[in-house]
Amino acid sequence: MNIKNIDPFAIYFDLRDGLSNKVESTKRYLSQMRGMYADEVSYEESLIKEDRLVYEFYELDIPQSSTNLMFGTSIVYPGKIGSEYFMTKGHFHTILEAAEVYYCLNGQGLIVMETPEGQTVVEKFQPGMAIYVPGRYAHRSVNTGTEPLVTFYVFPANAGHDYKTIEIKGFRVLVVEKNGEWTVVDNPKWG
Amino acid sequence: MNIKNIDPFAIYFDLRDGLSNKVESTKRYLSQMRGMYADEVSYEESLIKEDRLVYEFYELDIPQSSTNLMFGTSIVYPGKIGSEYFMTKGHFHTILEAAEVYYCLNGQGLIVMETPEGQTVVEKFQPGMAIYVPGRYAHRSVNTGTEPLVTFYVFPANAGHDYKTIEIKGFRVLVVEKNGEWTVVDNPKWG
Repeated sequence: MNIKNIDPFAIYFDLRDGLSNKVESTKRYLSQMRGMYADEVSYEESLIKEDRLVYEFYELDIPQSSTNLMFGTSIVYPGKIGSEYFMTKGHFHTILEAAEVYYCLNGQGLIVMETPEGQTVVEKFQPGMAIYVPGRYAHRSVNTGTEPLVTFYVFPANAGHDYKTIEIKGFRVLVVEKNGEWTVVDNPKWG
Repeated sequence: MNIKNIDPFAIYFDLRDGLSNKVESTKRYLSQMRGMYADEVSYEESLIKEDRLVYEFYELDIPQSSTNLMFGTSIVYPGKIGSEYFMTKGHFHTILEAAEVYYCLNGQGLIVMETPEGQTVVEKFQPGMAIYVPGRYAHRSVNTGTEPLVTFYVFPANAGHDYKTIEIKGFRVLVVEKNGEWTVVDNPKWG
């Protein structure tokens, strides 16, 4: 696709389930989440039972320039591994300063944000809540509810994704269920 | 607000009516739309009756750098001036190449897009429809329905707005009602 020549276009994402009827989503199954959950025994037990779809999102074919925008929906399904909720892998942007906006369409959850220096901020998703993720914050969506957590996201098209840092170090905090409610705890395996 | 120091934040925009409970919107009343409608007699007659709210939108206090994003909702109310539907003024971005994403939450309408060279593209808003406005396209939202047209928008925070060009020249096309349906016609007063 030529950077100079992108044409206007329309694409449908259902306001309720987040799914598009026009393009294929990228899917992350439990088998692709090895090492992301603190409780490795529960992870392996769960995976043997079923390789569940943890989340899916859309990646559109938009030129990766600073004046273009990437957008789509992200759908995190309800579930847990041990006491830890289903979540996205989470990522920094390759251009660390690039921000991202999330607008929650359905479901209940959290976004965990963390700078390389260790500042952690957690904001709550509920339908109608827009979350601003400033540059420098890695971010992960966590479904703490019983319905799919559906968000519409936009970020600068040249931002890129750095998944590796999180895959290696993890986030400094985990979101777990305790007495039937979510709580944020330190990640014993961080680093 | 310091560009280096923006913190993560959450802000609510109702998924149905688009309104926030946290910040004041910018409101555009009919009296602020003088010269924007083709039928000036109908405009003056309508204004004498009532200075109606045509549309409102949110402008958040986000640093205007290329790595930040501006976002919020836009609400265009149903109505007509003569046969021409209620609409936003429309604008180019000051950084002409800056794109914008709209995601329709409620209502029915159109987005009219136009380059300086005269390429015109019209896309249809309906709930769940995301519209990509590439750089170089001026854009205007038009409510062709009977409910508020509610969209969530995101653009690069340094994009800026050029309203003047449209205020002086108008768009090359108008959206009017004909036999109970919308239709796009040439703007006899363009230029």
